[in-house]
Amino acid sequence: MNELSELGEFGLIDLIKQDTINNHGNVIVGIGDDAAVLLPAPRQLQLLTTDMLVESVHFDLTTTTPWQLGYKAIAVNVSDIAAMGGAPRHAVVSLALPKSTPAEFVVNLYQGMKEICHEFGVNIVGGDTVSNPHGIVINVTVAGEVEPANLVRRSGAKPGDIVAVTGFLGDSAAGLALLGAGEWEDYDFAWPLVTAHLTPRPQVSAGQLLGSNGATSMDDISDGLASEVHEIAKASNVGIRLYAEEIPMRNELKEAAKVMDKPALDYALYGGEDFQLVFTMEPHQFEILTASQENFSWFKVGEVVTADQGVTLVDEEGNVQRLEARGYNHFHQEE
Amino acid sequence: MNELSELGEFGLIDLIKQDTINNHGNVIVGIGDDAAVLLPAPRQLQLLTTDMLVESVHFDLTTTTPWQLGYKAIAVNVSDIAAMGGAPRHAVVSLALPKSTPAEFVVNLYQGMKEICHEFGVNIVGGDTVSNPHGIVINVTVAGEVEPANLVRRSGAKPGDIVAVTGFLGDSAAGLALLGAGEWEDYDFAWPLVTAHLTPRPQVSAGQLLGSNGATSMDDISDGLASEVHEIAKASNVGIRLYAEEIPMRNELKEAAKVMDKPALDYALYGGEDFQLVFTMEPHQFEILTASQENFSWFKVGEVVTADQGVTLVDEEGNVQRLEARGYNHFHQEE
Repeated sequence: MNELSELGEFGLIDLIKQDTINNHGNVIVGIGDDAAVLLPAPRQLQLLTTDMLVESVHFDLTTTTPWQLGYKAIAVNVSDIAAMGGAPRHAVVSLALPKSTPAEFVVNLYQGMKEICHEFGVNIVGGDTVSNPHGIVINVTVAGEVEPANLVRRSGAKPGDIVAVTGFLGDSAAGLALLGAGEWEDYDFAWPLVTAHLTPRPQVSAGQLLGSNGATSMDDISDGLASEVHEIAKASNVGIRLYAEEIPMRNELKEAAKVMDKPALDYALYGGEDFQLVFTMEPHQFEILTASQENFSWFKVGEVVTADQGVTLVDEEGNVQRLEARGYNHFHQEE
Repeated sequence: MNELSELGEFGLIDLIKQDTINNHGNVIVGIGDDAAVLLPAPRQLQLLTTDMLVESVHFDLTTTTPWQLGYKAIAVNVSDIAAMGGAPRHAVVSLALPKSTPAEFVVNLYQGMKEICHEFGVNIVGGDTVSNPHGIVINVTVAGEVEPANLVRRSGAKPGDIVAVTGFLGDSAAGLALLGAGEWEDYDFAWPLVTAHLTPRPQVSAGQLLGSNGATSMDDISDGLASEVHEIAKASNVGIRLYAEEIPMRNELKEAAKVMDKPALDYALYGGEDFQLVFTMEPHQFEILTASQENFSWFKVGEVVTADQGVTLVDEEGNVQRLEARGYNHFHQEE
């Protein structure tokens, strides 16, 4: 296939606009006019979130395929919608690309985006494609909807609530470490971790179920569990106590941690991009919900306490320590 | 003030989230949760548009201030909403910045964004701020609303309609040329042109009025009038005939064109980023509307013809020539 410089901006748009609408009922105008025209569902609140991925900062084309990159660029936004208890509906995609980029790269990137959009019923309804001599930048904005009663914010946690997560933690960070170290293909344990990093699955169904079943606060785990519980604690004006031995970690993570010579718990607490959900809920409500849901494995990892007790971790020996808020923070210089 | 590396991502968010809500009635959650939560107006269609600006491609920090850059980043999106006949409501802003960027730069950039958002009643409800060693990239997504009856697409132009524009053309392109040439401060004529380039005013009121008064098609002039009428002709399956002597050009443009040794009409037809609107309308309806509107100066520049007549320009001598679609096109190599 051609380079973008031969194809031009309009040729590129023609190439990508096929199969972008997964729900024709809520799109009046998709790609190709000044703005997309969308039909909101009555009596729903609108959700809006945006995320930018920069080459060499957020992704490395030596370890991710364009398809995976496209999938993830949508996933990270869909995850934010899930964390509010909502359903993702529409995406607009901005791409900055060097002129020498092969058209095939863009087509594969869009295939990855279209795959996850198809899974979650999201329409790609517009975008902007511009040239950038300095590398690839992808920005995705996703609009979603939520029933007013099902909206979950960060700020509703109450002392006495349990703290729980929707799945295993640390996989993505360990996967990233393995990708960075190279030669991971030899290890069977590496695959679920690398996959979790490259093509994370946003927890939309779980988020909607939690939203309609009394979750008092919720966050997606994009910057690591420790950082997210600090966010909830701050927004809700509460403290949070986590139990190290309750943090769900798969065996593959523990094996990888041994190879990487780092505590598995570090990946689970401080590693980013798991895109599981952390939420709080009244204990009785949590019991009822977990008993009735065979399709979900949720893990209680702690409890909400009063603000004066701070955010702490009870380690395997029963010692209580302050839990650092560290996680991925842009702009702080790395050591 | 500090560099971003000292401030960190959360310090930065604290710095910019003041004065971001101009209409409290339609925002439930703004900056600071996983996604913004917004209250749509009943029975309106939702509009969504996004634009990305890349340093050294779309802007040059030696000729634009951060304030102007912020203003323009919002303006180009608001213009897309105007072109549909709609009202802009909410914006989310993604910034990729080198770690060495002074915090003051970001504050000034946001001041420019907040200024135009205040003018047009737009809320800044979220965003993403990431590091980028390779320069600055800004992506803005704007969500808007439009009454279903007032929606104007590109595709409704009919043979017999007039073609008109909402203001002078060519200013922005001439302003860009003057900025590139340098020493423009000596010329009085340069100011309105440079201003048109650096802080364009989106035509929201005009767009809404045209939407509610029978415009049959509309486009904002981001890539030059020639390119936009080709877009309308293609989407509407019609031809368009423009008259060179009717294209509105201010005297300052003509003076600048002399200095730059280029026909003024070239700036008006092929220069981008004017962000005026071009629209089509039944002739009788256009007469009624222009007679009743003292606040707007609209210029008839041509007429819609049948598709087989193509897109043409009648020059000052009355010769009919094909009008090239050229305008700004990303990815095409420049000569």
